[in-house]
Amino acid sequence: MSSCARGLLALPSPVILASSSPRRKALCEMLGIDVEVVPAMIDEDAPSSRAPRLMVEELAFRKASVVHQRYPDSIIVGADTTVVLDGQVLNKPQDAEHARTMLRTLSGRTHTVITGIAVLWRSMQLVDSRCTDITFRSLTDVEIDAYIATGSPFDKAGGYGIQDDCGATFVTDIHGCYYTVVGLPLELFYRMLRLISRLCR
Amino acid sequence: MSSCARGLLALPSPVILASSSPRRKALCEMLGIDVEVVPAMIDEDAPSSRAPRLMVEELAFRKASVVHQRYPDSIIVGADTTVVLDGQVLNKPQDAEHARTMLRTLSGRTHTVITGIAVLWRSMQLVDSRCTDITFRSLTDVEIDAYIATGSPFDKAGGYGIQDDCGATFVTDIHGCYYTVVGLPLELFYRMLRLISRLCR
Repeated sequence: MSSCARGLLALPSPVILASSSPRRKALCEMLGIDVEVVPAMIDEDAPSSRAPRLMVEELAFRKASVVHQRYPDSIIVGADTTVVLDGQVLNKPQDAEHARTMLRTLSGRTHTVITGIAVLWRSMQLVDSRCTDITFRSLTDVEIDAYIATGSPFDKAGGYGIQDDCGATFVTDIHGCYYTVVGLPLELFYRMLRLISRLCR
Repeated sequence: MSSCARGLLALPSPVILASSSPRRKALCEMLGIDVEVVPAMIDEDAPSSRAPRLMVEELAFRKASVVHQRYPDSIIVGADTTVVLDGQVLNKPQDAEHARTMLRTLSGRTHTVITGIAVLWRSMQLVDSRCTDITFRSLTDVEIDAYIATGSPFDKAGGYGIQDDCGATFVTDIHGCYYTVVGLPLELFYRMLRLISRLCR
């Protein structure tokens, strides 16, 4: 695997990922960036009246901020992803019945996935987010139940992973950034790191 | 890795992929479908006056058809991908200078990626295609040269891979199907296999 993107960045400090998501870690590694994982334990219950985009940005920032206090010399990356349909936020399903309801709701319709990123380094605080619209084909109950049986829905906002074997076949149309849906919009993330890389020269 | 999608398909025959693309093989495996690879050696020079969508469908069909003659009892999958900008077709770059010109042309603009698929089984001939619009951020010459130095552009239509480390950071916006750009639109491919799976019951 080449590390072309990494070679273009002159990062001044090690990078810590304030998220336990194995998908986010894999995306960092895809760019050739070795990260240490230090999950931030924060209360994710934000006021529900807040706009989803502000909410994910705030949560990404709070995750990064907690870890930044412990590792002030590192570059800290926080992220948060949520799914919105008809103004209603869908987080991770709590059990099989919840996952079933969620996937039936998403079936045949278009929802929005929003991922917020915060990158903190010394006094720099970069916070932004990306929204991506996803259209599902109509799913059968057999498909939904088979997917739930794999256990894949339970650690994912909206109850599906676009990058896993069934999830990939659910999506007819994407409008936005694919990696936003996986959990870390790479083009935005790369540009944030590039800014830090340039400013510290 | 779960094989949820595969578990939903009752395929009557082994699947042969009539393409040497390692990315298409990986996408089949992602769905849990074991494929044998038998690349079709065909003359890919289609008449340039043909519409790009018809061209990729015809090439996908011709690749599958050649292999189908040798393996009449298997399910044969052919595919072809092309990139179109301003009505001009961009295939695989021939050398570094060609790749540089191509990537400079794509920089900061929106192009279309089209992938045709043909799935042949006995007398069944399923042929279809998907188009996806991709917007690049502005690329610097340093980024373009670093990317070309990895060698990644040379086996890819348009001279980039959306799934490789630099390519992923080039794309600000996708409109369509992500897997079309990787080389095999999975939602369409899955539904084609499902049709065969149902008809042979």
